[in-house]
Amino acid sequence: MEHISDSTVRRLSNYLRALDDIEREGEDMVSSQGLAAKSGVTPAQVRKDLSYFGSFGRRGLGYSVAPLKAEIRAILGLNKRWRVALVGAGNIGAALFSYKEFARQGFDIVAVFDSAPDRVGETLGELVIAGMPEFEEACRARAIEIGVIATPAQHAQEIADAMVRVGLRGILNFAPRKLFVPATVALRTVNMAIELESLSFALAQGEAGRRGRRFPFGD
Amino acid sequence: MEHISDSTVRRLSNYLRALDDIEREGEDMVSSQGLAAKSGVTPAQVRKDLSYFGSFGRRGLGYSVAPLKAEIRAILGLNKRWRVALVGAGNIGAALFSYKEFARQGFDIVAVFDSAPDRVGETLGELVIAGMPEFEEACRARAIEIGVIATPAQHAQEIADAMVRVGLRGILNFAPRKLFVPATVALRTVNMAIELESLSFALAQGEAGRRGRRFPFGD
Repeated sequence: MEHISDSTVRRLSNYLRALDDIEREGEDMVSSQGLAAKSGVTPAQVRKDLSYFGSFGRRGLGYSVAPLKAEIRAILGLNKRWRVALVGAGNIGAALFSYKEFARQGFDIVAVFDSAPDRVGETLGELVIAGMPEFEEACRARAIEIGVIATPAQHAQEIADAMVRVGLRGILNFAPRKLFVPATVALRTVNMAIELESLSFALAQGEAGRRGRRFPFGD
Repeated sequence: MEHISDSTVRRLSNYLRALDDIEREGEDMVSSQGLAAKSGVTPAQVRKDLSYFGSFGRRGLGYSVAPLKAEIRAILGLNKRWRVALVGAGNIGAALFSYKEFARQGFDIVAVFDSAPDRVGETLGELVIAGMPEFEEACRARAIEIGVIATPAQHAQEIADAMVRVGLRGILNFAPRKLFVPATVALRTVNMAIELESLSFALAQGEAGRRGRRFPFGD
């Protein structure tokens, strides 16, 4: 039994998207070279990753696209639907709510909460936005499994705490801050601020490189 | 001269947000222990990261919050403004456009493009959405430095190619696919799909663990 690392899972995600492309191009079969080129890894890496779960290409023929897609989807848990509570109905929350990829990946937002009194009672799609005092009872009543945090950074930890208290199994965090949850709760963070800062750093250093370096590191 | 790694940059981003919190709580000084606890790393890691750029806390006193913030902001290139073109005026693009953190970090969206004929000519804030045929000329005319891709996955690479062609120095990609650009262009990807799949994987495996493992790996 091998441990499957987070980076393997991320590569499987990339293979899945490459297979979508390949299917769209009308191909039934793909070689490890073809899949590797579209995913930015080596063919040996593709073969190693796919051999973990017993999917072996056939020499000279490669992998069958549709069964391989189905297999990766099953491993990633994408053949199941999850009941999701969204906390934060601002710009990011509203964009997530209408983000088709979200539903396509099995995440159904079935309840929306916000702490701003002027948002409570308004609607997002067909859902009425509820206030935070109703959060825990609503999660229990509606059998919510996953929480999405789309609030300002300063409220994110207390909301994560409430999600843990009510027994949610997974949290997807869009607030730009590090959150602390017990190891039994799966936490993933989509941190736009960190990506922005990493980009801004690369650009600033590139510029520093051209003008004479301003900081004692780089390249 | 030491190389500063991407993971160091990400920790600096986290320190910056922790320092925001600490400032909001009214503190002028912070110890490496205090900064470490809020950032989820060890005090030794904090001291090592901050010593890279010559910022040493004083024994028994710690770091001065405001100067340390200013120093980290300068290193991350956040004391400069960047001219940004947004391609894709759908849900994600519109959310980014109104995302305050974006402007707060120095990214000014000064042009918006979309390939959908019914969106071209509409407005986003005070900007009129332009069509893709105008992209390259507009980037030159408006001295754009950074491109943001918020389109469906299948158009993302051709848009990245156009951005490279017109000489943009950085690309922030929100489309769920791997992009290929020359090493001279800084590329960062915010991949919600990958985070969703990683979360869904963790939940599915947890479930598999309770029911008897279904795949030959786990934990």
